[in-house]
This record gives sequence, C-alpha cells and structure tokens, in this order.
Amino acid sequence: MATINARAIVYPQYGEPINVIKAHSYQLPAPESLKDDQVLLQTLATPLNPSDINQIQGVYPSRPPISIDSLPGLKEPSAVCGNEGVFKVLGTGPSVSGLKPGDWCIPKKVNYGTWRSHAISPEADLLQVPNTIPLTQAATMAVNTSSAYLMLSHFVDLNKGDWFIQNGGNSQVGRCAIQIAKKKGINSISIVRDRPNLKELVDELTSLGATHVITEDDSGSKTFGKTVKQWTGGEPIKLALNCVGGKNASDMSRKLTKNGVFVTYGGMSMKPVILPTSLFIFKNLKAVGFWITEMTKQDPELREHVISEVLKLIQGGDLANIHCTLNKIVNDQVTDEQFVESFKQGLLDSKKKGKQIMVFD
Amino acid sequence: MATINARAIVYPQYGEPINVIKAHSYQLPAPESLKDDQVLLQTLATPLNPSDINQIQGVYPSRPPISIDSLPGLKEPSAVCGNEGVFKVLGTGPSVSGLKPGDWCIPKKVNYGTWRSHAISPEADLLQVPNTIPLTQAATMAVNTSSAYLMLSHFVDLNKGDWFIQNGGNSQVGRCAIQIAKKKGINSISIVRDRPNLKELVDELTSLGATHVITEDDSGSKTFGKTVKQWTGGEPIKLALNCVGGKNASDMSRKLTKNGVFVTYGGMSMKPVILPTSLFIFKNLKAVGFWITEMTKQDPELREHVISEVLKLIQGGDLANIHCTLNKIVNDQVTDEQFVESFKQGLLDSKKKGKQIMVFD
Repeated sequence: MATINARAIVYPQYGEPINVIKAHSYQLPAPESLKDDQVLLQTLATPLNPSDINQIQGVYPSRPPISIDSLPGLKEPSAVCGNEGVFKVLGTGPSVSGLKPGDWCIPKKVNYGTWRSHAISPEADLLQVPNTIPLTQAATMAVNTSSAYLMLSHFVDLNKGDWFIQNGGNSQVGRCAIQIAKKKGINSISIVRDRPNLKELVDELTSLGATHVITEDDSGSKTFGKTVKQWTGGEPIKLALNCVGGKNASDMSRKLTKNGVFVTYGGMSMKPVILPTSLFIFKNLKAVGFWITEMTKQDPELREHVISEVLKLIQGGDLANIHCTLNKIVNDQVTDEQFVESFKQGLLDSKKKGKQIMVFD
Repeated sequence: MATINARAIVYPQYGEPINVIKAHSYQLPAPESLKDDQVLLQTLATPLNPSDINQIQGVYPSRPPISIDSLPGLKEPSAVCGNEGVFKVLGTGPSVSGLKPGDWCIPKKVNYGTWRSHAISPEADLLQVPNTIPLTQAATMAVNTSSAYLMLSHFVDLNKGDWFIQNGGNSQVGRCAIQIAKKKGINSISIVRDRPNLKELVDELTSLGATHVITEDDSGSKTFGKTVKQWTGGEPIKLALNCVGGKNASDMSRKLTKNGVFVTYGGMSMKPVILPTSLFIFKNLKAVGFWITEMTKQDPELREHVISEVLKLIQGGDLANIHCTLNKIVNDQVTDEQFVESFKQGLLDSKKKGKQIMVFD
C-alpha cells in the first residue's frame, strides 16, 4: 500500500515570493487508507493570483497561519501558498457520501493553500463542480468569475437594458463582467489603457460582448461625455467597477448617474481612489469596496449560490475560455528545486504576460 | 395706507457676486392690504453662505430661476440672492391662522431669496420659530446647524460614548457638530489647520465640548494613530465628516473603523476626495455625500423634524452663540448703491474674516 508523494509551495516568512517560497515534499496516505470523512485530492490546476502574491508578501489582510502544523513533516513553521484551484478526487474515507474518485471539487474556504500537488480535506470543506467544464474555468471561478458576478448583482439592481461602466476592462474580472452583463442583457462601457494594438483588443472584448470599449484618454476627455450620452440615449449609468484608481477612477466616476454606486475592488495604478467632491454632494455618489474573501466569509451560503450561478453560465457556454497562459508542471521525477522553479517562473511571467495558471500533468 | 418700500439683492446673470449683484427697490402692500394667506415679512438677519455665492456664480446645482416674475417692478429677468434667514411677521392676510405680527419665521424651502428687506409669502411656505432665541441662531439654524445635526444622526447609529472624527473643526458646521455631539455624550476628534494661535482655538473648541482637537500634521503622522487609540481606548471611530478633501480626507479616513462611514459635505481645499484603495476593499469603507438642500427637498418632514430638534438644543442652551460677524444694514434713507455696497463689503469680509451675517436695523 504505497503512500502518495506530495509536494507543496510554502513560505516560512513574509517577503517577495521569489525570495521566500520553497518546495516541501511530504507523504500522504494511499486512497485505501483514508479515514472517516477524509478526501484525498490531486491538484489539477491553480492560478497565480495577485492576492496570492500579496499574501506571501504579508500585506494581504487575510492570511493562512505560518504554522508547523500546516503540512506533515515540516521542519519550520510555514504556510502553504495559493487560494484558488480545482482538484480531482483520488479516494475517499468510509463516511464520505457526496464525492467519489474522478469527481472535481474546489475549496469552500479561503486560505486553503492550493499551490500543491495533493491534499487531504474533510468532505465538508469541499464544493463539487462538474468535471465536464473547462479546467481553466474551474480553476478560476471562485475568485475572478464570482467577483464579477457578485459586483454586477450585489450593489445595484441592474436590469435588461441598464448600463454599467468599468475600468480594467481587459483584466480577468473585467472580461468576466463583460460576458456576464451580455448574458443578462446589461450594457457595458469598458475603459482600457491605450496601446499599439488597441483595435485588436477592442475587437476581442467586443466579440466577448462588450457594448463599448474606450481608452483612458477618451474617458478623461471633456467632450467624450456627449458620445457616451449618445450611446446610452440618456439612460443612466448606475454602477462603476474600479480596479485601477487615480485619475482613471475620477474620470470614470463623472459618468455615473445621480445616486450611482462606485465599487472599488482593486488598485492596479497603485494610486488612491480619487473622486470629485461635487459628485458626493450634488449627485449623491456612494463609493464602496468589494472583497470577495470577506463577503463570502460572512455569508458562506452566498458563496455557494454564486458558484452555482457561475456554473450555469459556464455550462451554458456564456463565458469564453479564460484569458491566460497554462504552465504545465510535473511533480514526479523532479527535484524540489525544479518544482519551486516552475512556480517562480510562473510568478515572473504573471508580471509581464498576464494571468498564469499552473496545470499539473 | 402707505405701501412698504422694499429692497432686494438680485442678479440678472451668473458671475462673480461682486460684479453681478444689484439692488432692486420695489413696493409691497401695507399690512392692512394683505389678501388670503399672505404673510408680510420683514427680514431680521440673513447669513452670507458659501452656497449663496456658488449659486450666484451659477456653479451650484440648486438655483432659483432668473425670471422677470421674481419681484415686482423688475426691468430685466433676475433672481434674488440668499437661501437662509429669519423674518419677523409685519402683517397677515385674513385666512392666515398660525402667524401673527411679531412672530418669527424661516423659509420652508430652499432658493427663497433671503437677501432682501421684506417679502410676502403664503403662510404654508413659512416655519415659525420662537422669537425668544438668539437672532444669529435663528438666522443659521436651517443650514449649518441642521446639517451638523443630520450628519451625526442620519448615517451611523451613534450612541453615548461612541466616537466620530471631522475635519474643518473650526467651521460653523464643525462647531455645531462638536456641541451637538457633546450634548448627546458622543466623543469627537476635530482636525483643524495649524496656526500661530493654535492653543487659543483648541481651548475655544474644547470649551464648546470638543473631546480632542488635532492639527492636520497630527492627523497625517504615522505615529499619531497610537495616541488616537489611547484616547478612544480602542473603541471604534464610526463616522468621519469631511468638508476639506485632499490629503486631509485621506489621513482622516485611515482613523475610521471597519465598516466606517465617510461623509463628504464640502471641499474647502478645492481638492477632490482622496481615499486609500485598501480601506475600501479591506475595511469596507463606505463614502457618501451629504447635501441638506437635496435631503430636505426629498423629505420635507425630515426638515421640520430637524428644525424642531435643533430648536430644543438652542432653547436648552446647548449651542453657543454663532461664531460670526454681524453687519448692520439699513434700508431706509439709503440709495440702492449704498444698499448693495453693504452686501459687497460683507462678501469681501466673508472671504477673509469668516461667516458674515447681515442684520437689518
């Protein structure tokens, strides 16, 4: 009865991921030896999210404990990296009733530590997802896709024909928001950075369902407001989604209607949220924040509801494949150094080339 | 049966008040000739508020019409300046039942045009206030005092022992907020600009009931947070009132607790509201605006409720006399030029010397 050779990416202290992450090899029991409600999982895919990086840097408010108990065989207190991913069931303990080998599942809770080859969890901590959906959708539905879904439904009652505006239109959340809105008949205006191949990007986002795609310069132009009014036919823009901050946020906020809601979920420009005083006073602007981690911690049922709604969209073919690079990674016949090196390369690429997903071979 | 020689400050077009305001003389019927529900009023006192100035400049969203019907005898379409003031009843029409000569009242609605010596209104447009309260309180209770009262009660449930923070602690609203909080047992931290005679101001605000008064430098200091925590004993600061904007707003926002509410009602620095992205996402900051004009337009009953609550405070001696300069003004035996000149001087002084109230002799 052979045990399982498992590996995880861990950090014993906070710091730049490239400097502090390590591979840790450990043994897990074979499927036949599982007890009670234990489920043995093999990782299929896990994304490298900005929040994972901030967590390792120690600047993210929600963090797993750095503990000697995080994994078997640790020589120093460590935390396991990663919060999102999809797993395949390899085996189940005798009292597990809802999962069987071959099923897919995702963690119910945050701070799971998904950058690892295998895991064992109580059944209650896992949420099954169909093993027929695209792997990249399954691996990213809990954070980006769910965030987009929640932000479009939680703050403002958006109905068919209504309008919202967002910056970071090319981000993963932005792309999901475009597609979810399209499916619901909601119109979108997405702000993107100007770039040499702008038309390509505009065409791509339009093909996903974007109603209009504009640049930051467009958004900041005083005369462009007229164009927006022509587009909307004077219909109000009720919601703004902000993941950029700075002047971009300020320009975007001016397009909101009276009583509009401005939701901040990121700050890619590293600048604060800047909003005109007059909008608060004279247009009753409401600016709020969105953090899926906290929202779903407070309300686990909401999380399950959103996951089920997002699944419907995925299964209905309403969400295009995730815009990302897949990095195949092997656990067998590599050293700890080679294993951690793959993740370090993925982290470097994620800075330059967009979203990276690690896929276990 | 002599008619009444009335005068008003009007503007035929938007612009800098000093350039566009004029005096207009006109006749009103004598008290004996009033009809139906008409009430003849003599102005006792009217403040020169920043919003009055913005209205004349044409940059304030709520504005009276520029119309030939604004006053009797106008030669060109004009609007009457001023939104706040207290009047004495000179006479009433036969169907007026709730007011009698000698009573005091304030306008129920905004855009009344209070910079005038006399007025005639239907009884229904007037709200009686006791003629025993201080004149300056009566003249300013509808905007500044009511704003402070509403902001402390409308957004967050503040109970005895709770904390709020505000900038512009030396402003009229700031002073009212300090006193209203004191009366309710609510603790305040007021941010003021540094100045040569800082101690004097701190002593003055403390004597009004301020729990703590700090400078903008204190508020911006990273180490000062510890002092604030010592003061509050770790109790949450649930509400921030902002009439300044810029870095001041940003520094103040960092002192708010999780789920805190940041209310903007002014922008004296002329800078936008700058708020850290992380507060929105990780501390669920909610930033909203307050505009008493709109709030009381939407809910006239709320306005009457607030006025009655504020009256209780004034009558209970819980609000010190208004911090302002009184400018005596006469209507008889002066020319239109002299009349308008008094207001122009008041406007100049209001820029340099703080709140000016025009008091009719």
